[in-house]
Amino acid sequence: MEVRSRTLGELAALVGGELRGDPGLPIRGIASLEDAGSGDLSFVTGPRHLRQAEASRASALVVPRDLDLPGRPVIRVDQPYAAVVTLLHAFHPEPAPTPGIHPTAVVAASARVAPDAAVLALAVVGADSTVDSRAVLHPHVVVGERCRVGEGSVLHAHVVLRGNVEVGRGVVIHAGSVLGADGFGYVFDGARHVKIPQVGRVVVEDDAEIGANVTIDRATMGDTVIGRGTKIDNLVQIGHNTVVGSDTIIVAQAGISGSCRIGNRVVIGGQVGVADHAAIGDGAQVGSQSGVHGHVPPGAAVLGYPAMPVAEARRAMAAQAHLPELLRTVRVLKRRVAELERRLGEGGR
Amino acid sequence: MEVRSRTLGELAALVGGELRGDPGLPIRGIASLEDAGSGDLSFVTGPRHLRQAEASRASALVVPRDLDLPGRPVIRVDQPYAAVVTLLHAFHPEPAPTPGIHPTAVVAASARVAPDAAVLALAVVGADSTVDSRAVLHPHVVVGERCRVGEGSVLHAHVVLRGNVEVGRGVVIHAGSVLGADGFGYVFDGARHVKIPQVGRVVVEDDAEIGANVTIDRATMGDTVIGRGTKIDNLVQIGHNTVVGSDTIIVAQAGISGSCRIGNRVVIGGQVGVADHAAIGDGAQVGSQSGVHGHVPPGAAVLGYPAMPVAEARRAMAAQAHLPELLRTVRVLKRRVAELERRLGEGGR
Amino acid sequence: MEVRSRTLGELAALVGGELRGDPGLPIRGIASLEDAGSGDLSFVTGPRHLRQAEASRASALVVPRDLDLPGRPVIRVDQPYAAVVTLLHAFHPEPAPTPGIHPTAVVAASARVAPDAAVLALAVVGADSTVDSRAVLHPHVVVGERCRVGEGSVLHAHVVLRGNVEVGRGVVIHAGSVLGADGFGYVFDGARHVKIPQVGRVVVEDDAEIGANVTIDRATMGDTVIGRGTKIDNLVQIGHNTVVGSDTIIVAQAGISGSCRIGNRVVIGGQVGVADHAAIGDGAQVGSQSGVHGHVPPGAAVLGYPAMPVAEARRAMAAQAHLPELLRTVRVLKRRVAELERRLGEGGR
Repeated sequence: MEVRSRTLGELAALVGGELRGDPGLPIRGIASLEDAGSGDLSFVTGPRHLRQAEASRASALVVPRDLDLPGRPVIRVDQPYAAVVTLLHAFHPEPAPTPGIHPTAVVAASARVAPDAAVLALAVVGADSTVDSRAVLHPHVVVGERCRVGEGSVLHAHVVLRGNVEVGRGVVIHAGSVLGADGFGYVFDGARHVKIPQVGRVVVEDDAEIGANVTIDRATMGDTVIGRGTKIDNLVQIGHNTVVGSDTIIVAQAGISGSCRIGNRVVIGGQVGVADHAAIGDGAQVGSQSGVHGHVPPGAAVLGYPAMPVAEARRAMAAQAHLPELLRTVRVLKRRVAELERRLGEGGR
Repeated sequence: MEVRSRTLGELAALVGGELRGDPGLPIRGIASLEDAGSGDLSFVTGPRHLRQAEASRASALVVPRDLDLPGRPVIRVDQPYAAVVTLLHAFHPEPAPTPGIHPTAVVAASARVAPDAAVLALAVVGADSTVDSRAVLHPHVVVGERCRVGEGSVLHAHVVLRGNVEVGRGVVIHAGSVLGADGFGYVFDGARHVKIPQVGRVVVEDDAEIGANVTIDRATMGDTVIGRGTKIDNLVQIGHNTVVGSDTIIVAQAGISGSCRIGNRVVIGGQVGVADHAAIGDGAQVGSQSGVHGHVPPGAAVLGYPAMPVAEARRAMAAQAHLPELLRTVRVLKRRVAELERRLGEGGR
Repeated sequence: MEVRSRTLGELAALVGGELRGDPGLPIRGIASLEDAGSGDLSFVTGPRHLRQAEASRASALVVPRDLDLPGRPVIRVDQPYAAVVTLLHAFHPEPAPTPGIHPTAVVAASARVAPDAAVLALAVVGADSTVDSRAVLHPHVVVGERCRVGEGSVLHAHVVLRGNVEVGRGVVIHAGSVLGADGFGYVFDGARHVKIPQVGRVVVEDDAEIGANVTIDRATMGDTVIGRGTKIDNLVQIGHNTVVGSDTIIVAQAGISGSCRIGNRVVIGGQVGVADHAAIGDGAQVGSQSGVHGHVPPGAAVLGYPAMPVAEARRAMAAQAHLPELLRTVRVLKRRVAELERRLGEGGR
């Protein structure tokens, strides 16, 4: 939805950049180097994209201060990525939905919905729940009982907060995610698995973002917590009573079991598994598809199953391909050593 | 929602425990050792939590018969976990939803809904389906055509039974799960993948529990079956025609392919993959993130990719870190053996 | 729902097969060899099922031209699987839902819905979206703004197209899948993760089929593409800007990261992970639970983490179990070589 075209000069001013080229050049959108055509502004984040930039059909480019593209109109900036974020917002403004409660929504009498919040078609808000100012519940969202959706938070279509879930301010939850389902807790009484009632909460702190079809279980007792500014990708599982710190990244299909402690600014790769009661320190990085048990120290980078320091894991992985050859070599060596021992007059072992 | 406070004496009687301490002590809730404060009852399941128990600010504790906490009010019981389950139910009664069909629900004329079942806001019940006594369909549940939801079963928000799905008694299905989508079956005709119509059913037996955003595919022909009392965690995939036995545990994000036979009281760890037509015997255990092909004998414990006996797998994993060093050692040995052979007057190999 | 019984002669004619047996034999349904009973037609796809066929209680069998089952009524055909597809469709016709917009559906004034499309109970169609002829939106489907659902495509219950999603003709999307959620793109500005607006689209080409609870993210800019005839299983994740070719198979719980290029007629196994910017050539096969980084050449078959040629991977996996023993062998060899060196009058190294 490019709403209207702008001039290169306007855009340079918008991002506080230095313009080299015609300020009146009309620009109708932002595109990648590959996809850009005439009328598009594209961008280069570093010298390694220089050749691709030269080949691009973009009408103009956002470039780092220290980069030159002779003969091409450019906007030079300190932080190309930040400038692109600004430009994307300018060209693709997110229209805020009309505030109010859609006539097809079902809102409990005891629920409190701020007058400038938007509860869209067929959304449900349960008893004793609160939807704060400028929050948006997209179609088919189900907010259970005793929940809070904080100021300006957006719940996309089909999100479910089952009950006793607290969502802070400026949170985004993508479609189909389920927060507050029962944790997976049973005791085997000798005959069958007896369910441990799951009576705790889920708390999502301010500015967190949660992907699509994610599941975050309520605590058995106490809280499952997603920290401030943490970003969770699609199809991730977070178990009961797990506490995730701030500004942490959890990539798609990772699974964090119950009662884990994940620090701040941690990066957990795609399809990683983290076992019950594991602890991952601040700033640690876990490579994709790894399996973490026990403790990962702050700042560590680990990989593999079981996860080990990444350099060690890479060496072990590289060595693994040589394993069949190694088996053969050792078999031959064994024969040669036995032969040497025989010739020196001893049977050896 | 602690509804009202109770006395320690009442609670001891409730769980049939032996009270040591003031029976009139008011208790307002149950909490973990860590989270408990004044007024809370907490619990110790074994001697390894003793130090934590001593440090806890809980007003009283449930403890095993043979454990003493001098100076602390305790309730001594045979099975602390079972007692906690009872106490959690007492403090957190699940209020049954009001029976009846919500005016916004859409129920086919040919569907049969028991008068004491609850079909909540915006739920859909398709033609020729049956919802039995005390069953609960939470908001936005879609029950397709020719389904049955058994007595007292609970389908949480957004659950989909696509059609021809039979759910037994006392089953719980958490939000967003999809039962009865087409199995993944195609034949390549040389030009394209031709879909094999999937015309079978899904059958979930009594007392099973299924997590959030799980997918269980209908059989091609015949039935996909989840056995009595089996517990399935979030984001699990169960393929077409697979039969899972009774009292089995399948942890989050595991994937069971089509036509598998999973026994009774099996435990399948998180993110495990089980290949088509595999068979896992009664009581077997599969470690997290393992890959199972073929056959796992009853009672076996396996781990790894491909899955092997767990002791063997752990030895192989431990050895793996030594692999780069081993490669170097063998290279050096090879040189030393060649030198020995040379000195003994032979070139050797 | 077997609607009515047919004669074996009718069925032989329907599949163009050669009948051996009584053409008047009544057949009431199709079943597997194992499940078939009297009145059922079953099938054998090759000689390895011969013994099972002899034991089957099926009244008649579809068999390959070159196979004989003396004394059993058979229909002999060139392609048994294709015949079974035809027969399943005959016995289990999918009744087309009644066209029109259900009174409980919420359709934006600016949306265009073909008169012979079916928008079922409680479905939502957003502004400026188009639903073409014979398309079906099952209950609770949410089609966002500026989407297109092509001719004859079927979106099962609870599917979400978030906005700017284009679905071609003859596409099937199973329940709970989310297309067009934001890609997972952030830049860390030193203090927090700043979101890169995701303003691109998702495009699903004709005849693709997408499983249940799948997530396919919109492109940052440009398009995320699922090619013509490609089949995606349940709980799969497709990242932003990834382009998947035609007639490709992606099995359950696989995760394809952002900006990948997946070719035509590729097969990606269950729980596979594909890293950002990876490329998989036409006709390549990736074994289940593998991890792909970088480039897989056309036609290659790879396995493992990191993925390597499948023969090599299998050898490495087989060798892995011998690793602990190998470590012991090498330790012993080292001692024996040192002893030999000592006896030859040198300390060695």
